[in-house]
Amino acid sequence: MMRTRPLKVALLGCGVVGSEVTRIMTTHADDLAARIGAPVELAGIAVRRPGRVREGVPAELVTTDATALVKRGDIDVVVEVIGGIEPARTLITTAFEHGASVVSANKALVAKDGAALHAAAQERGADLYYEAAVAGAIPLVRPLRESLAGDNINRVLGIVNGTTNFILDRMDTSGAGYSEALDEATALGYAEADPTADVEGFDAAAKAAILAGIAFHTRVTLDDVHREGITEVTGADIASAKRMGCTVKLLAICERAADGRSVTARVHPAMIPLTHPLASVREAYNAVFVEADAAGQLMFYGPGAGGSPTASAVLGDLVAACRNKLSGTAGPGESAYSRLPVSPMGQVVTRYHISLDVADKPGVLAQVATVFAEHGVSIDTVRQQGKDGEASLVVVTHRASDAALSATVETLRQLDTVRDVASIMRVEGE
Amino acid sequence: MMRTRPLKVALLGCGVVGSEVTRIMTTHADDLAARIGAPVELAGIAVRRPGRVREGVPAELVTTDATALVKRGDIDVVVEVIGGIEPARTLITTAFEHGASVVSANKALVAKDGAALHAAAQERGADLYYEAAVAGAIPLVRPLRESLAGDNINRVLGIVNGTTNFILDRMDTSGAGYSEALDEATALGYAEADPTADVEGFDAAAKAAILAGIAFHTRVTLDDVHREGITEVTGADIASAKRMGCTVKLLAICERAADGRSVTARVHPAMIPLTHPLASVREAYNAVFVEADAAGQLMFYGPGAGGSPTASAVLGDLVAACRNKLSGTAGPGESAYSRLPVSPMGQVVTRYHISLDVADKPGVLAQVATVFAEHGVSIDTVRQQGKDGEASLVVVTHRASDAALSATVETLRQLDTVRDVASIMRVEGE
Repeated sequence: MMRTRPLKVALLGCGVVGSEVTRIMTTHADDLAARIGAPVELAGIAVRRPGRVREGVPAELVTTDATALVKRGDIDVVVEVIGGIEPARTLITTAFEHGASVVSANKALVAKDGAALHAAAQERGADLYYEAAVAGAIPLVRPLRESLAGDNINRVLGIVNGTTNFILDRMDTSGAGYSEALDEATALGYAEADPTADVEGFDAAAKAAILAGIAFHTRVTLDDVHREGITEVTGADIASAKRMGCTVKLLAICERAADGRSVTARVHPAMIPLTHPLASVREAYNAVFVEADAAGQLMFYGPGAGGSPTASAVLGDLVAACRNKLSGTAGPGESAYSRLPVSPMGQVVTRYHISLDVADKPGVLAQVATVFAEHGVSIDTVRQQGKDGEASLVVVTHRASDAALSATVETLRQLDTVRDVASIMRVEGE
Repeated sequence: MMRTRPLKVALLGCGVVGSEVTRIMTTHADDLAARIGAPVELAGIAVRRPGRVREGVPAELVTTDATALVKRGDIDVVVEVIGGIEPARTLITTAFEHGASVVSANKALVAKDGAALHAAAQERGADLYYEAAVAGAIPLVRPLRESLAGDNINRVLGIVNGTTNFILDRMDTSGAGYSEALDEATALGYAEADPTADVEGFDAAAKAAILAGIAFHTRVTLDDVHREGITEVTGADIASAKRMGCTVKLLAICERAADGRSVTARVHPAMIPLTHPLASVREAYNAVFVEADAAGQLMFYGPGAGGSPTASAVLGDLVAACRNKLSGTAGPGESAYSRLPVSPMGQVVTRYHISLDVADKPGVLAQVATVFAEHGVSIDTVRQQGKDGEASLVVVTHRASDAALSATVETLRQLDTVRDVASIMRVEGE
């Protein structure tokens, strides 16, 4: 059954992931051929700086002209591991125009322009796969899109950024402050020189948009995702979480509203109970919970980043795209028929942990409790602690809308007796 | 793009899983149609005892003539949830002969005759999917077969039987003995009236065969899997495990040998450290670890059985089979090109925990240690405990082959000073 003309692959980008894709395609060529049903070969590798190409990458395949490579006309699959919006977007679109399928690891691009890219692929009967864009090697896109295609997904809750999980884990275990933990992450290669995309939650938000779109059969872009990073998480927050039997994690949360008529997607730090399986996800690992009507609760766990894990996901997609090429078909494309509205953050309902610095005098607790009551936010527990004429109040609420909580906090800030709203953190996973 | 002639599905079996498949196909018909690209309808439901059909199952679709149903000629996909070898095997084969694809939840049949069934499917260009045969709703077959198609899997280690996990969990947490825990499992519906398939490890062994076959691209049948159940696990074993910081789980373990040239598959109770993520898999849940060259360690977790979770897996496969029917193609079939030999249990290398009842006199430890040394089995730790002229010795070994360990135990049994080899348990997950 093996055909002899090899399938041709163009690789765009040859950094940590691209060089690992190259290595595996070279050393495991026989396995890949057997699994695909035809040999597959690297036809060209486009890089920006050929002088920087790593050892083991065949020099004769390297080019700086990515556009000419995707326009060659004999390319079956383009693997894009450049990242960022341009030139990746134009190159992928050009690849489709020239009949190639595309495997991409580009979360930012898919979260921004997934719909247009899917449309371009469908027009040409080509594939667009991007398992590597979400949580590295952990199979998530395919399970959500195919394994759960007959089920109704209500919630996706996960740790999808390894850098921030490493930092929060260090703050939790060693008592380090945010800056110190970030320095350690940088030194160990878990954080980039400019860590903004990770620590401000942009990376996780892109993944949340992709996961929400697939889970809810609805278009969700990066702009639809409420985003808060971890830069304001303090040692005091972590200590407060511990006192509650919780830990702090940066979570991506995609939810279908109880009435099923709208969805939300958000990324923010949150306290989760230590008994929740996500609480024990350490270092730079990722893990994602999926809740579906029939399946119940599923969890997927593994390394969320890194050259080899990401290459594993890319190669899985490459095998699928090549198989489809051989059989003259395409895998499942975009599924956005539900067209559910994405509600703003104000409509999200969850629990909150609020720390207030207040005057240490009688009646303050009553005053604060009245403000919560007036906004319809029900209090679960209050912990009061006095220190030198000042006192701190820690309030944990029952479930309330984000809008109601924001209004509550706004009013609290105006009270003379409330010196400072020291921190507000959501409580999830209960 | 939606075609109007519906795809027709024949359902074989309408017990817990079948009735849930029927319910979801009926109540979520619009969603399924949108995801498939065409409406899909139940054309017939074959049952043995029509009087026992559950509420909500359309009576007009029910037939006792399964053979006539699969022979109708207009069936696109046959869903088989009967279980057992016959008549399931003949019905599936007949379905292929009449042009249908098949979705099956039948682990016993796939583990026994997977190769023949795959060949029959391929001959007709049809699909054979069986995600539901392994670990219920947890996506495992598709991730192994497709997401990791570009990677090299070295090990699959998992809890794949909910009944035995429930029993062992109860023994661990409540101190119950095996019989008492089995009674509780039966009362709660976790164990069947005849629990043999679960407690003797047959169910887990079938799943191990399926997982090993897919993971190693090699044919592995039930007969290739070394199998030990949990009926001989005692409260003393659980207590010993606790003293070592371990718990006892029934594990399915599929491994590629270090040289890559052979594989093993086995199911047996084993001690695993409490720090291992599998140790915290409670009640009837399932979880599977997968170790691959590039991906690293992945874990998949969720409900391993039950009507709804199994139906979720069946429906995911049904959507895939229907999509393939529409596009006139078939998904990936059997991949067994590696043809690696399956080594016997004697060649498995792992660690062991051995409890001996010995005479309480000087020199016994030296004598026992000599036997281990003579068989090349290196001792990690020994714990000695005296009681009324008798003593117990607990030996934990370093890694050794099963054959060497068996020979060691054989010799120990012949020592006058060894009254009994009270238990032997493997230690995994380190």
